[in-house]
Amino acid sequence: LIGASIGLAVRERKLAKQVIGIGRTISNLTIAQERGAVDLFTTNLAEGVQQAQLTIICTPIETIAEQAIAISQASPVGALITDAGSTKAGILTELGERLAAGTTFIGSHPLAGSEKTGAEFARADLLVNRVVVVTPTPATPPDKLAAIREFWEALGARVVEMSPEQHDAAVAATSHLPHMVSTALAVATPLEFLELVAGGWLDTTRIAGGDAELWRQILLANRDHSLRALDKFEKVLSGLRTALQNRDGDALRQLLEAGKQTRDAVGS
Amino acid sequence: LIGASIGLAVRERKLAKQVIGIGRTISNLTIAQERGAVDLFTTNLAEGVQQAQLTIICTPIETIAEQAIAISQASPVGALITDAGSTKAGILTELGERLAAGTTFIGSHPLAGSEKTGAEFARADLLVNRVVVVTPTPATPPDKLAAIREFWEALGARVVEMSPEQHDAAVAATSHLPHMVSTALAVATPLEFLELVAGGWLDTTRIAGGDAELWRQILLANRDHSLRALDKFEKVLSGLRTALQNRDGDALRQLLEAGKQTRDAVGS
Repeated sequence: LIGASIGLAVRERKLAKQVIGIGRTISNLTIAQERGAVDLFTTNLAEGVQQAQLTIICTPIETIAEQAIAISQASPVGALITDAGSTKAGILTELGERLAAGTTFIGSHPLAGSEKTGAEFARADLLVNRVVVVTPTPATPPDKLAAIREFWEALGARVVEMSPEQHDAAVAATSHLPHMVSTALAVATPLEFLELVAGGWLDTTRIAGGDAELWRQILLANRDHSLRALDKFEKVLSGLRTALQNRDGDALRQLLEAGKQTRDAVGS
Repeated sequence: LIGASIGLAVRERKLAKQVIGIGRTISNLTIAQERGAVDLFTTNLAEGVQQAQLTIICTPIETIAEQAIAISQASPVGALITDAGSTKAGILTELGERLAAGTTFIGSHPLAGSEKTGAEFARADLLVNRVVVVTPTPATPPDKLAAIREFWEALGARVVEMSPEQHDAAVAATSHLPHMVSTALAVATPLEFLELVAGGWLDTTRIAGGDAELWRQILLANRDHSLRALDKFEKVLSGLRTALQNRDGDALRQLLEAGKQTRDAVGS
């Protein structure tokens, strides 16, 4: 979804001479080409990136570092490599000093997920008005950082810059914790009560319908920050429990008001 | 919202000779009349229900039992009284034997909430294809039960019959627990990370934007069932925590799959 959407947007906005789709299966690549997301495609990584100034890795996070190394080795000098993975610090640890000289990796995280996967759902406006986090390190060349910012902005996104660690702490709270909580809510619902679910349950459990393997990887990749976010959540929930146990209406209302205030600060 | 929506639907479908709106403030009643939700309105309860065959109490749950008693005393013999409150057993306990002879109360719960409140948001189709739970007791006259079922069905709703206790246990899991969890998620999110929230956080915290006083009352009214639902949720969440702490990818994936399975069983 994300790769083909970026391809569509790049071609529509004429931001590149050529967009080359690289993948493992011809079927999804064919769909991407039919949708107009790529000019050409190949299943051969080295061939695909041979002349690439910019490569965007849109694969499961466990494979990103390894792909980045292979891409850096086959790319021209000056090549910029980024990704669309949901965690950032682990990739850099895994990369270490293994990138080919003259190439740069800067981690990116477009906040434009969807339950849908695959090129058939690609949309050229997927990133319009969405946040893309870019995560430079002290070693990142300023011109490359400027280039990656410019690229995402050209797709209509709002770029936010953070260190890889800051990013991972933030998404633990805003994405990975909600996923765990949503999953636990769904699992904790007795099946015989499902006929009574309404808007509230449907909203709170929607992300529990996401791909289990994808989320296994994300949670493991961001284990420490996710556990810390969970600690904080459990502390708040335990405060709600205590207020309810004690029939303490004032404390209960204060917590409900605090949640409403945070939620209302963001909008729909 | 709910009262005016029922009024609109009853008038559109010509299910009553007259719909009388009863409330405390002229302003909201005037809006209801302008919207076509009521034929007449009054702030005098006894006057309003004098000839009422059916009265639907759409007030905060803490006041429902008391209102039902006042209504039963002022209504004609044979009158049926119902409500739209989110919990059911407590109302019956509070009613005890205090209803006027010849009148019947049967608890109802239309599952059609909204963050919006007030007659201005009323919609005649609010209950179409929604579930309305009706909660008879062994003492409920069968003809009155049939009448209340027929009424909600005439508005397009699907009626589900449960005992008041069963209902309260079910909504603790499907509505009150999700509300506590959604609130705790919102409160646990550090404000400096709010710029990174995306679809998942927005969905899981949406109901935390609900009215705090309304939810204080609901949670207190369904305290015991809500605490039991919370126990179960915390057990599941603790399983997720353990799997993540132990980097146990298989256990993590099993829980994610279980959540997805339950969520997928329901639809969007």
